[in-house]
Amino acid sequence: MNLRISKIIALLNNQSLDAAIITSVSNITYLTDYSNFSNDEREAYLFITKSHQYILTDGRYTTEVKKHIKDFELIEISSTNLFKDALMGLLKKHSVESLGIEEEDITVSELKRIQSVKSNVKNFPTHTLRLIKEASEINLMKKACQIGDKAFKYILTQIKPGITEKQIASKLANFIRENSAEISFSTIVAFGENAAVPHHQTGDERLSTNDLILLDFGVKYNDYCSDMTRTFFLGQPNAEQKKIYDAVLNSQMKSIEYINSHLSSVNNKTYIQAADVDYAARNYISSLGYPSIPHSLGHGIGIEVHESPTLSPISKHILTEGMVFSIEPGIYLPGKFGIRIEDLFTIYEGKLTKLTSASSEQIIL
Amino acid sequence: MNLRISKIIALLNNQSLDAAIITSVSNITYLTDYSNFSNDEREAYLFITKSHQYILTDGRYTTEVKKHIKDFELIEISSTNLFKDALMGLLKKHSVESLGIEEEDITVSELKRIQSVKSNVKNFPTHTLRLIKEASEINLMKKACQIGDKAFKYILTQIKPGITEKQIASKLANFIRENSAEISFSTIVAFGENAAVPHHQTGDERLSTNDLILLDFGVKYNDYCSDMTRTFFLGQPNAEQKKIYDAVLNSQMKSIEYINSHLSSVNNKTYIQAADVDYAARNYISSLGYPSIPHSLGHGIGIEVHESPTLSPISKHILTEGMVFSIEPGIYLPGKFGIRIEDLFTIYEGKLTKLTSASSEQIIL
Repeated sequence: MNLRISKIIALLNNQSLDAAIITSVSNITYLTDYSNFSNDEREAYLFITKSHQYILTDGRYTTEVKKHIKDFELIEISSTNLFKDALMGLLKKHSVESLGIEEEDITVSELKRIQSVKSNVKNFPTHTLRLIKEASEINLMKKACQIGDKAFKYILTQIKPGITEKQIASKLANFIRENSAEISFSTIVAFGENAAVPHHQTGDERLSTNDLILLDFGVKYNDYCSDMTRTFFLGQPNAEQKKIYDAVLNSQMKSIEYINSHLSSVNNKTYIQAADVDYAARNYISSLGYPSIPHSLGHGIGIEVHESPTLSPISKHILTEGMVFSIEPGIYLPGKFGIRIEDLFTIYEGKLTKLTSASSEQIIL
Repeated sequence: MNLRISKIIALLNNQSLDAAIITSVSNITYLTDYSNFSNDEREAYLFITKSHQYILTDGRYTTEVKKHIKDFELIEISSTNLFKDALMGLLKKHSVESLGIEEEDITVSELKRIQSVKSNVKNFPTHTLRLIKEASEINLMKKACQIGDKAFKYILTQIKPGITEKQIASKLANFIRENSAEISFSTIVAFGENAAVPHHQTGDERLSTNDLILLDFGVKYNDYCSDMTRTFFLGQPNAEQKKIYDAVLNSQMKSIEYINSHLSSVNNKTYIQAADVDYAARNYISSLGYPSIPHSLGHGIGIEVHESPTLSPISKHILTEGMVFSIEPGIYLPGKFGIRIEDLFTIYEGKLTKLTSASSEQIIL
């Protein structure tokens, strides 16, 4: 049996459930290796018992599903075979008493429709499902990071006064597509003062002859995402910018050192608290008198750009072997500028490994 | 007061609610005219009472929100001011007894977090909020359609044997971006047999010297979407392809005629049932002996590519003044080919108007 399906069955056993409905598109991608369903509306459901696996989708997808998805039996839903009717049939056929749903994914309206068929459902917690990556997944993310590194090198050759934020984003997207990949989220390009907004909306601002550029972008390669941020300069940065750049870079270093110094004990099961890694970077920035990072230090990444674990002050996550996550400290001075540096890391074979390779040294164009 | 906020307040009155939490990103865009929040995770909430409006978001967005969103008071949420704590404060401050949430948007997990603060919440039905478009919205969609028409003309000049589906999608996206817009969804490019899959995943297939191309794409201009599909030929289509092309085009015509013949009574409030429009096209295709359309005949469109109304056999929607929707019949012969033709329409000033202008005549390159 498919190893990933067996993880679901282990979860069913663990939760004392007879069956579960999987709705999150990322989990469907993970379990079926088919990624064409929309994130914007509900187009497919997996129904998994300990002995049988089904995929429920409509006529727009049935031909492709038959061709690409072998481990799941197809049930076509339509206006004459509604999801809730198909569900009722499956519950009966497999004598399902206890049913799980993904409460993190399913809406209240959808829950009510399911409850019209089966009133008693439980949460099926899938947030750990994709937490530990297989070697093949890490390899895909390495490849995504390599394309990102290449794209970053390329874009540095394209930066000149007068170019707009949107034009940079567009050139970057084209380059990534020409390299057999996609962007994994809307690229953030922020010039000067705009970089003080951590999630600036890339606009029509033109680059000055002496300016700062914050670039936050990611690559999606074979369904797996990368994510990186670099802040660099056209013309000489001023003393404050240089100083803050170093503070951000050093704060990233502090969190890396924290992980490295605790890694030796990972195999003895003394794990690393994500919140402590966040603290190492955050505390360093605060201790220099700069405003605290107005976001988490980092996030897990995989099929989704943001997934478990979270590196934040309130995170309960533990970092361990096989996880892939970002470390992205930033200092933002509203009305002036902002600097963020972001790289991806994995703990693999007992070592912290950086997946992104672009230099973090100050770049002055 | 902002007209759109007053629509929410009317809904509050109508539902006997003191306040509502708005979470859907499209509704937040509609109400605030700010569209930078992610669809992939929860980054903002609106909290609306009959007298006060708030936006709750985190430090990544506060600078931009202060600058762009004037009608809503900003509450910054963070790890020391969690959403549920901020919500508790607002409920107390405004003595809210009855609270509405968007059950179509909020997940079961989120509901549970809200219920830890306020156990009794009701559905706040917002599906009608954006149903009737203002003239300014229709103008933006006209502009999106115009860019789409221009992009279609351009792409026809780029089609040659050997080009891949992905290359066409990429050229189209570049052209759209160079025209100050974005693609509104992942472009579907399907050659020959792939076109028999209504939602084919654009791939690395190469175009033959004699082939059929199905192209389904949309433009997003200033937050508003277009959507169109054309199927055309490189080299002469065979007799079956010609015949089916005509059948699809005529079936679109049947539904247009149905609307036109019922339009005169619109102003006398004899509205058009969306399901009947679907039937006009669907029945025509079935009467010729072809397989029934394996999807809805059409969908509403606006800030989202798919929104109310739905034109399908089970739709309860009524088409009326100010709605914008697609009409997109298709015939699909698995293993052979498929043909779909899609245009956008609006009922405006008592007339059915086509927003897309690209010719629907058979195009042979």
